[in-house]
Amino acid sequence: MDHREKMDRQFEFCREIDKEKFIGRQTYLTDGVRKENDAEHAWHMAVMALILSEYSNEKLDLLKTIAMILMHDVVEVDAGDTYAYDEEGKKTQAERELKAAERLYGLLPEKQAEKFKNLWLEFEEQKTPEAKFARTMDNIQPLMLNAASNGKAWEEHGVHLSQILKRNEKTMEGSEKLWEYAKENFIDPNIKNGKIDTSKHEKT
Amino acid sequence: MDHREKMDRQFEFCREIDKEKFIGRQTYLTDGVRKENDAEHAWHMAVMALILSEYSNEKLDLLKTIAMILMHDVVEVDAGDTYAYDEEGKKTQAERELKAAERLYGLLPEKQAEKFKNLWLEFEEQKTPEAKFARTMDNIQPLMLNAASNGKAWEEHGVHLSQILKRNEKTMEGSEKLWEYAKENFIDPNIKNGKIDTSKHEKT
Repeated sequence: MDHREKMDRQFEFCREIDKEKFIGRQTYLTDGVRKENDAEHAWHMAVMALILSEYSNEKLDLLKTIAMILMHDVVEVDAGDTYAYDEEGKKTQAERELKAAERLYGLLPEKQAEKFKNLWLEFEEQKTPEAKFARTMDNIQPLMLNAASNGKAWEEHGVHLSQILKRNEKTMEGSEKLWEYAKENFIDPNIKNGKIDTSKHEKT
Repeated sequence: MDHREKMDRQFEFCREIDKEKFIGRQTYLTDGVRKENDAEHAWHMAVMALILSEYSNEKLDLLKTIAMILMHDVVEVDAGDTYAYDEEGKKTQAERELKAAERLYGLLPEKQAEKFKNLWLEFEEQKTPEAKFARTMDNIQPLMLNAASNGKAWEEHGVHLSQILKRNEKTMEGSEKLWEYAKENFIDPNIKNGKIDTSKHEKT
């Protein structure tokens, strides 16, 4: 592949992922009015990884962690965002996202396509320290924002504490300290003020 | 400082910079309708640095470059965005931004405050390979988006070619190859289709 053709493919990818800015999430920004999009979320997580990496349970390759974070939602350009508590959507999520990864990373020159697709797969597989810490950021960032907007998104969706705890069952695998902090500062106050549902749903 | 107090300060910073998502820029997204904000811009630049770092003129510390990119607009939370062609705003920009850096990075624990304020100063001073490449991304990303939206922002603001060339006079210091590519693929087509003003303003 000649020099210019390679650059054409790289810029094609860079233009295509601009679409992440149009993919809405369910998390309110700190103003409690507008909801964030995938690009804003990835940026916020990446900065948080820079600031909070000292709390990782395991030693990290920080560049790899940040690259993983910056790219982890690229597949949503084709597959869309699947809300954490959308049980129907989650059934087809893996298949939709794999197909998206093939197409989107496939825009890049072959070696980079392979490298970044594998980095995304590593994130999905959740086995390495980098994947675990990236997942912790992916979970802690919306907890922080939901708390900053006084639990508005939790209340609107009628989210139950058990759903939050299930969603976060692996958050501590990246960082026990950050999970402790998030429970005390982001979750507990919103249990106390009633924004997180703690009623007993499953009565017999 | 105890453990929890340190985390309080780090999360205070992470919450505060959420405001970058409300700071609008003049660049249209690829849909040619909505304009991007600082957080989206920083994310896009950071991904582009991951994809395009091979074209840096000099060897890079890529983690440092990406950290610099992710943080380079934090000061705008207080100081606002100064449009590239706003000559009045640029007169007070340096002073406004330094004051903002003191306050915003000052939210962090002392060592991190120092580290990230210095990283921002390094970006501003434009002497190291990382600072030069980060600036190249900061310039190439809006050129790419302006071209993708058929020069809409250039046309609306009546931007003259001489302004674009002045704004980009140091883009090649980070990467000659990327500057060549940007001229040929992003600027030249918009001269040909009349979206960039090339009239002779300064007639005697």
